[in-house]
Amino acid sequence: MTQPMFDRIALIGIGLIGSSLARVIVREKLAGEVVISTRREETLEEARSLELGDRYELDAAEAVKDADLVIVSVPVGASGAVARQIAPALKKGAIVTDVGSTKRSVIAQMAPELPDHVHFIAGHPIAGTEKSGPSAGFASLFEDRWCILIPTKDETGSPAMEALTAFWEACGSRVEVMEAGHHDQVLALVSHVPHLIAYNIVGTADELESVTEREVIKYSASGFRDFTRLASSDPTMWRDVCLHNRDAILEMLSRFSEDLTALRKAVRRGDGEALFDLFTRTRAIRSGIIEAGQDVDVADFGRSVVRGKSENAKS
Amino acid sequence: MTQPMFDRIALIGIGLIGSSLARVIVREKLAGEVVISTRREETLEEARSLELGDRYELDAAEAVKDADLVIVSVPVGASGAVARQIAPALKKGAIVTDVGSTKRSVIAQMAPELPDHVHFIAGHPIAGTEKSGPSAGFASLFEDRWCILIPTKDETGSPAMEALTAFWEACGSRVEVMEAGHHDQVLALVSHVPHLIAYNIVGTADELESVTEREVIKYSASGFRDFTRLASSDPTMWRDVCLHNRDAILEMLSRFSEDLTALRKAVRRGDGEALFDLFTRTRAIRSGIIEAGQDVDVADFGRSVVRGKSENAKS
Ligand SMILES: NC(=O)c1ccc[n+]([C@@H]2O[C@H](COP(=O)([O-])OP(=O)(O)OC[C@H]3O[C@@H](n4cnc5c(N)ncnc54)[C@H](OP(=O)(O)O)[C@@H]3O)[C@@H](O)[C@H]2O)c1
Ligand SMILES: NC(=O)c1ccc[n+]([C@@H]2O[C@H](COP(=O)([O-])OP(=O)(O)OC[C@H]3O[C@@H](n4cnc5c(N)ncnc54)[C@H](OP(=O)(O)O)[C@@H]3O)[C@@H](O)[C@H]2O)c1
Repeated sequence: MTQPMFDRIALIGIGLIGSSLARVIVREKLAGEVVISTRREETLEEARSLELGDRYELDAAEAVKDADLVIVSVPVGASGAVARQIAPALKKGAIVTDVGSTKRSVIAQMAPELPDHVHFIAGHPIAGTEKSGPSAGFASLFEDRWCILIPTKDETGSPAMEALTAFWEACGSRVEVMEAGHHDQVLALVSHVPHLIAYNIVGTADELESVTEREVIKYSASGFRDFTRLASSDPTMWRDVCLHNRDAILEMLSRFSEDLTALRKAVRRGDGEALFDLFTRTRAIRSGIIEAGQDVDVADFGRSVVRGKSENAKS
Repeated sequence: MTQPMFDRIALIGIGLIGSSLARVIVREKLAGEVVISTRREETLEEARSLELGDRYELDAAEAVKDADLVIVSVPVGASGAVARQIAPALKKGAIVTDVGSTKRSVIAQMAPELPDHVHFIAGHPIAGTEKSGPSAGFASLFEDRWCILIPTKDETGSPAMEALTAFWEACGSRVEVMEAGHHDQVLALVSHVPHLIAYNIVGTADELESVTEREVIKYSASGFRDFTRLASSDPTMWRDVCLHNRDAILEMLSRFSEDLTALRKAVRRGDGEALFDLFTRTRAIRSGIIEAGQDVDVADFGRSVVRGKSENAKS
């Protein structure tokens, strides 16, 4: 029998990301023992009833004892407090990482709390859904997705960095190393601003007098529906993202707004050529995404899974 | 054997919508004969090779001869020209309808061209995908979706109105009657502005220097991907929608922009409470959409169909 990658992995936070990690760790036999910790008793019970790990601890410090790999999967605003809590209990030589959606702030919060005798490498798997909690996770979440790692201190090329890279690859991901500030800019564009815009338009719809909520719901199949999916993501997670990646988000939002002003002008002037140009230019990125395997080229009309199933049922 | 609903249906335009209609008409046996017409020879050939109808005509006037129901499915900017072309050939008592995404403009374009001896009722099925052309259609597109009908002249409650309602119901849709101006406002909100915003952010990404296109593609799974799907829709269709529903679109865009200004302020000030409030408020509409069957409550992570299939394969 081959040795597992790590003797003991501690998962601090067991929501969508933490529980997906638990599932893939078990499936791929990446740990001798999985210890799970979360803030609230009821979430811990949920994890237990889903049989996500080998041991369950309310006390995060208790959970990280003797762990070789500690993965913190909590809202980014809670990273500092969690680091403070686990710091005294961390084993010498342990690898500590996280999965938070913002990186400069998480590193600023966690690095000063952690002892010198651990290897802290910040991380962010670029994979997710709009769901949260232990039941929302699934083992294939990270498959063919990228995981960004940000080595702090002297971790570039270190054995710890190699081990963590191998871990994410075993979860099905490809690893990319990036600088924290650049990460925050890229993610502001590809994730944070899209979510904010989705929240914003759903909010606009919610407040309009001329169109009722019932009408919005009935006719949502025409485009709006996709925004409501993003806008149903966890409010705590997204509040924290906004508070902890403020500068990059504001910069991207202001670029978006400038472009929107130009687009409004083209609509107002009836400038069909400018509109056609923009609507054509945007297609190239979509082709790139399909080719890169980041989406499937199947028309989504709001019930693709159901359709996938019934198509199968026939065959 | 039961009689088909119509002896002859003529489909003018055979893209996503027209070809989906052709497929459901055949499946549900709604016509004795289906005659298909489209502008370009190559599209007509494609329709023929897909065996979408019984007869194929490049000349729209030829196609509508003796048809009891004529459905025009072309970009809204072409509605007037098509109406002018078919007008002289229309049978007395025929029902003429369309599927265009804007209604005030289509009615203004078509109504004056059509003879008094036909029944013109404008329509808009609220169902679609980002794909176009005859191969993109499928018979179940309209299932459990709404179709909005706008009776012009004295058609409210007329036998023609009843027949067209029965037709859409046979296609699987529910029918709602609405006034054209209100339609245009509702659709600006639930469809036109979401598409414009999607095009806009993909355009912003395309022009940024700080983040490369390669990075956008790699990390698109985090939210951006969904916008690129909308922004890959047909440029001609969307240019026409913008040109033909300008006022309602500008009004909704300006509401959206106002709200975005407030949201930017909340981010700038680090107002976590305001952010959390917005992010919570928007969840109710999503629940409504799931309950109304306008989307499935399955997390979409960019390969749901594939996942649906593999889940099935196991069972
Ligand atoms: N969702 C995504 O799509 C996605 C993708 C990539 C990265 N991320 C990042 O992954 C992290 C976790 O997200 P998730 O989607 O897994 O969240 P989730 O499903 O909401 O789970 C959050 C976890 O964090 C715990 N937690 C919440 N507030 C806490 C606090 N103040 N102190 C300590 N623990 C707290 C929760 O514990 P209790 O339930 O016990 O309170 C739960 O175990 C976030 O940093 C997020 O930015 C998310
Ligand atoms: N796509 C959606 O999601 C959706 C949903 C609801 C309603 N609609 C509305 O349905 C209508 C058709 O959309 P679609 O998605 O089916 O489009 P599509 O797949 O692009 O097909 C367009 C059809 O219109 C023809 N056409 C294009 N330009 C024309 C012109 N200038 N004169 C005459 N015929 C022309 C095309 O003919 P050739 O190929 O022969 O040139 C083709 O048969 C549009 O009014 C749109 O607003 C679309």
